[in-house]
Amino acid sequence: MKKIILTAFLALSLITGSASAMSKSVSIADQGSFAAGGTVVQTPGALKPEEPMNPAGQTLHGDHAYVFYQKPVHAHKYPLVFLHGGGQSAKTWETTPDGRDGFQNIFLGRGYSTYLVDQPRRGRAGQGTVDGTVSASTLDQFWYAQFRLGIWPNYYEGVQFPKGEEALNQFLRQITPNTGDFDKQVISDSMTAVFEKSGDGILVSHSQGGGPGWLTAVKSNKVKAVVSFEPWDGFFFPEGEVPEAIQTSSPFGALEGTPIAMEDFLKLTKIPILVYYGDNIPDKPSKEWNGDSWHARLDMARIWVDTINRHGGDATLVHLPEIGIYGNTHFIISDLNNVQIANHMSVWMHEKGLDK
Amino acid sequence: MKKIILTAFLALSLITGSASAMSKSVSIADQGSFAAGGTVVQTPGALKPEEPMNPAGQTLHGDHAYVFYQKPVHAHKYPLVFLHGGGQSAKTWETTPDGRDGFQNIFLGRGYSTYLVDQPRRGRAGQGTVDGTVSASTLDQFWYAQFRLGIWPNYYEGVQFPKGEEALNQFLRQITPNTGDFDKQVISDSMTAVFEKSGDGILVSHSQGGGPGWLTAVKSNKVKAVVSFEPWDGFFFPEGEVPEAIQTSSPFGALEGTPIAMEDFLKLTKIPILVYYGDNIPDKPSKEWNGDSWHARLDMARIWVDTINRHGGDATLVHLPEIGIYGNTHFIISDLNNVQIANHMSVWMHEKGLDK
Repeated sequence: MKKIILTAFLALSLITGSASAMSKSVSIADQGSFAAGGTVVQTPGALKPEEPMNPAGQTLHGDHAYVFYQKPVHAHKYPLVFLHGGGQSAKTWETTPDGRDGFQNIFLGRGYSTYLVDQPRRGRAGQGTVDGTVSASTLDQFWYAQFRLGIWPNYYEGVQFPKGEEALNQFLRQITPNTGDFDKQVISDSMTAVFEKSGDGILVSHSQGGGPGWLTAVKSNKVKAVVSFEPWDGFFFPEGEVPEAIQTSSPFGALEGTPIAMEDFLKLTKIPILVYYGDNIPDKPSKEWNGDSWHARLDMARIWVDTINRHGGDATLVHLPEIGIYGNTHFIISDLNNVQIANHMSVWMHEKGLDK
Repeated sequence: MKKIILTAFLALSLITGSASAMSKSVSIADQGSFAAGGTVVQTPGALKPEEPMNPAGQTLHGDHAYVFYQKPVHAHKYPLVFLHGGGQSAKTWETTPDGRDGFQNIFLGRGYSTYLVDQPRRGRAGQGTVDGTVSASTLDQFWYAQFRLGIWPNYYEGVQFPKGEEALNQFLRQITPNTGDFDKQVISDSMTAVFEKSGDGILVSHSQGGGPGWLTAVKSNKVKAVVSFEPWDGFFFPEGEVPEAIQTSSPFGALEGTPIAMEDFLKLTKIPILVYYGDNIPDKPSKEWNGDSWHARLDMARIWVDTINRHGGDATLVHLPEIGIYGNTHFIISDLNNVQIANHMSVWMHEKGLDK
């Protein structure tokens, strides 16, 4: 019965489309923030209190994640733990560029506790244990293509990105730089610490968050499922089963699978996994660098999902156009149809018994 | 009558002390995030779509603030807009290092809408329009003294900082670096844009946020009051009335007042202003660099408040030990007695008619 009601609800949502921000109030039982994981480094030498800027003998806390969490009253058993992608912070999951609810509010409204992460060396978790540089290079038009809004200044036909100057302004200002090298091991270590705080939960990753996300599921037995939106790289295969690299015409070069011990790989076969890719990804190699780059990722993801399932896993790849959902950019979770996408994800979580 | 009830409530709070995190649920009518202000820069030259990492012809959006807001049901008229200090993000106002409610939850629970800002070139607003470097220098023991927890490894006697390794760990991980030069004008421009979104409101600043906070009140007529916790610098005086610089033995050198046009200065005399300083600030020049540095600031703030009032303004300086509140660090807003401090601020807001 529960499933029938849910399906009817979803059908209605598909007709009415997306709602504006928070159409009804949400009762929050608790909310707050914390740092998770990280390391402490120390400079050799004797501490000199009268020379406070002398690093000798002093320590530094860095490489932690920052997390903001909210628990609605009567929350589902499993919280959703959100890990952003490249050039982004937890903002990815908040208000959309045109002011609608992002996944934070949508799933809070559906009774899920949410944990929004800024990964180590990004956003509010900006203090790393390595020096970093931040560039003010002009790259808006690169990101525009990379995130598949279109080829500047044109949008792809039928694209699910909100039109208007202010939406694009907001979208481009979501971008926030690395404050130190991107490091999958550092990130997945901190994410493991996040799950120690959240308890058993569902990891939702985007883009560059895909790779450290799989590693988190390998490292932590508290990751009970993974939903990954357009994972960028970090496709882990058992040693000896890594497929041939896929060449691309993009500045990122060839896409390679990454070998991992069979024992670790098999951990990914013990939890349900759902992977989404959006629209405007060519179905064969393309001369346009962005399309070609994403074509390689979709192809690799298909091989990866097949490999997971061949080893007894439960992974599903949804290429949205194949189920009749068109126009999605790389930011499926904040596109105009993000309620429809959230509904699809909700149905899957229900089918897998994750919405208890 | 209303005032009497409030006072009784406060007296009770003084006895019972601080509560743990969110003792009752809060009904949120709306929440979300946005970028405010900022600029767009462009590299000269022709855009080459086939060379996506070539900055020629491309733009960059940067120097905006990032804001997360929450509106409780039946909110007071004026929201609180929070601006953090040096080496910090909006995390300053969230959960305390030992897991209690920060000012975000405390004032949300009291019916205020809250706007928590990451200033330009910090935290989730990390993309500036100038290059930056991030250092992994070991400076924990510097911050420990600078923030007046004590002189490492000792805490000041009776300090209101929560004891225990994990609280200190959380506190030190709140620190997040500049991703570009600190610039009061850039920050106050973006804060003016924040107030365009929030509407008329009360600016609450901390430490290094003091200076750009005063400038925001000069630039925006939507700032209806300012509460500033331990403003660090940016004490603006009318041209010709700047007091003598105060020398210090700290690595930050002498503290100077900053001249500003009389017309601008007078804007600060049109709104109620409340300034707090905590404990362990020497009442005369000191050989300990951190105490000496704060002694200079408290002294300068006294001169500044007198100057505001001499020109017809309504500024109040509260040096907490003078009203019998002892042990506060530089982080008055997250110290063990932060509910008591919030109560004091609530009384002031009520007296000034700011809690409508």
